[in-house]
Amino acid sequence: MKKHNFSAGPCILPQDVFKEASQSVLDFNESGLSILEISHRSKDFVDVMDEARSLVLELLQLEGKGYKVLFLQGGASTQFLMTAYNLLENSAGYLNTGTWSTKAIKEAGLFGSINEVASSKDQNFNYIPKGYEISKDLDYFHCTSNNTIFGTQMKAFPTISVPMVCDMSSDIFSRQIDFLQFDLIYAGAQKNLGPAGTTLVVVKEDILGKVSRQIPSMLDYQVHIGKSSMFNTPPAFAVYTSMLTLRWLKAQGGIKAIEELNEKKAQLLYSEIDVNPLFKGFAVEEDRSIMNATFSLINEDLKETFDAMWKEAGINGLNGHRSVGGYRASMYNALTIDSVAVLVDVMSDLERKA
Amino acid sequence: MKKHNFSAGPCILPQDVFKEASQSVLDFNESGLSILEISHRSKDFVDVMDEARSLVLELLQLEGKGYKVLFLQGGASTQFLMTAYNLLENSAGYLNTGTWSTKAIKEAGLFGSINEVASSKDQNFNYIPKGYEISKDLDYFHCTSNNTIFGTQMKAFPTISVPMVCDMSSDIFSRQIDFLQFDLIYAGAQKNLGPAGTTLVVVKEDILGKVSRQIPSMLDYQVHIGKSSMFNTPPAFAVYTSMLTLRWLKAQGGIKAIEELNEKKAQLLYSEIDVNPLFKGFAVEEDRSIMNATFSLINEDLKETFDAMWKEAGINGLNGHRSVGGYRASMYNALTIDSVAVLVDVMSDLERKA
Repeated sequence: MKKHNFSAGPCILPQDVFKEASQSVLDFNESGLSILEISHRSKDFVDVMDEARSLVLELLQLEGKGYKVLFLQGGASTQFLMTAYNLLENSAGYLNTGTWSTKAIKEAGLFGSINEVASSKDQNFNYIPKGYEISKDLDYFHCTSNNTIFGTQMKAFPTISVPMVCDMSSDIFSRQIDFLQFDLIYAGAQKNLGPAGTTLVVVKEDILGKVSRQIPSMLDYQVHIGKSSMFNTPPAFAVYTSMLTLRWLKAQGGIKAIEELNEKKAQLLYSEIDVNPLFKGFAVEEDRSIMNATFSLINEDLKETFDAMWKEAGINGLNGHRSVGGYRASMYNALTIDSVAVLVDVMSDLERKA
Repeated sequence: MKKHNFSAGPCILPQDVFKEASQSVLDFNESGLSILEISHRSKDFVDVMDEARSLVLELLQLEGKGYKVLFLQGGASTQFLMTAYNLLENSAGYLNTGTWSTKAIKEAGLFGSINEVASSKDQNFNYIPKGYEISKDLDYFHCTSNNTIFGTQMKAFPTISVPMVCDMSSDIFSRQIDFLQFDLIYAGAQKNLGPAGTTLVVVKEDILGKVSRQIPSMLDYQVHIGKSSMFNTPPAFAVYTSMLTLRWLKAQGGIKAIEELNEKKAQLLYSEIDVNPLFKGFAVEEDRSIMNATFSLINEDLKETFDAMWKEAGINGLNGHRSVGGYRASMYNALTIDSVAVLVDVMSDLERKA
């Protein structure tokens, strides 16, 4: 029985992508070879990498605007240090909206002075700070668009005069944003883009090459750009599966169409959280994420019953992160509204029973 | 038609591994979930990571000897800088046996002084230097056990009093070595271990923590050890497929059994190179790699005919690297002796026709 997978990441991808990726592990493009055993320098794979990179620019509407697309390794955690290695000469501004922002600040601190422009730590990160100042003297400003653990999401981004760097790991390709606002976007693939094992970087080339330190080749964006994201052997299967997912997204109607669906899914679940007297949401209403809904039972005595009910319904991955407790429903692009309806039904059933 | 895949990497893996990995992309362990969509913190995946790490120690006979196993990202290219970041305080000795050693030397040079103890660059790396001195004052000595591009292989390793670091990307798990000689072994997975996208590190814990610089978390071996190789989301599918390949190797009888087969395969091909008057080997005889055989036609006029013949026979990936030219037959663990026999037949056929 196929599960309703609400896992926070790695997470659900489109079923058609699983099917095609599975077939390509046996025989890729009817070549008689597995996607896992072909040279990354072969035309077949270079085509995959090129298509993945152009689909990113097309879907984000960044074609012809000076951006380069890279599929790297090491996750957002490696980008925490790599952005600073490449961009931080003196000081940078960071908005602290949760666990991942905090880690990004820690890693960047090895390379320069960090100005935490605002933080929502005072309320265990259940809101997005607003109205902060960003000095013109900073090398860049860094923010996290969506906070998977706390279920908050930036609905607007500040207008600033320094380069803006954004960790979009958990909501890229899920909603329409003017991506031209950003000078560097990075995202671990394992939410809306593909399986774990590759990291997307979209960078405006003209912000690079301005720091005085020497950068090791593998940590240098310019080196990867110079080799069209193939400086060394790329994580071929993860890039291939990401390309399939991007193709799927385009076929759905792109980000505009998926955003409409994501809004519906989120509305369905948040309405239940608000109307059902047994549950309460964690994030403040205006900052609620459409990707990750965090909520809990008001009466913890119902936990055992509720947990048995959602598991019985075929739901997977609903436990909240230990920093928040309760539940977290991650509703990434590939999750159907039917799966959300199953969860909402279980929540209503619990109300009837309780 | 299934190909005879002599690709240098990514390369052939066991057919049973392709089948099982393909199935798990659809449904892993009959869980109703793809291996690509499960949480890396789930018991199912933690079991995969644990099994992969213990199979490595078991197969290398390093159990209970103070070694830790990590599955990281970024390839050997990231290890070039990471080894230096973690181990290089003043100066290190490097043996230069080819393209990858040269790159390792370049990256390490950003972190300290490099003493190139010997080099075979004078003969385009067609041999392994011997009889060099390694000073006791070095922080460590670094070597490359097998040179994929040039087809040479270290048959013995120096006895030294400083830690020995070895890039074994292209021959780990292919032959019996006393692995206790080494303090740190690293290997990009995409030869004998698994698909591209993960990098194996086997490190003796007591050599770490001795440099004075601060190390970013993702580049710090101690951080990864402290989190049992799960500091951040690992490249789950690449680790899983590596685990399947290690299981396969164990079922074949381990490294001892595969080495016997690898020796037979290499002997079959090198005998033909030596006996067939149309071909000549590139590497000097005593340093020939059992993984990658480099050779060329004596008369380049036969190139078109020979190329058509091996392609017709279903052979893939035989072109040599541009630094050497000619041909390169990579005979990794999963390549059958039948595939080598097909290549040898084509070479004999050419001799009869020419």
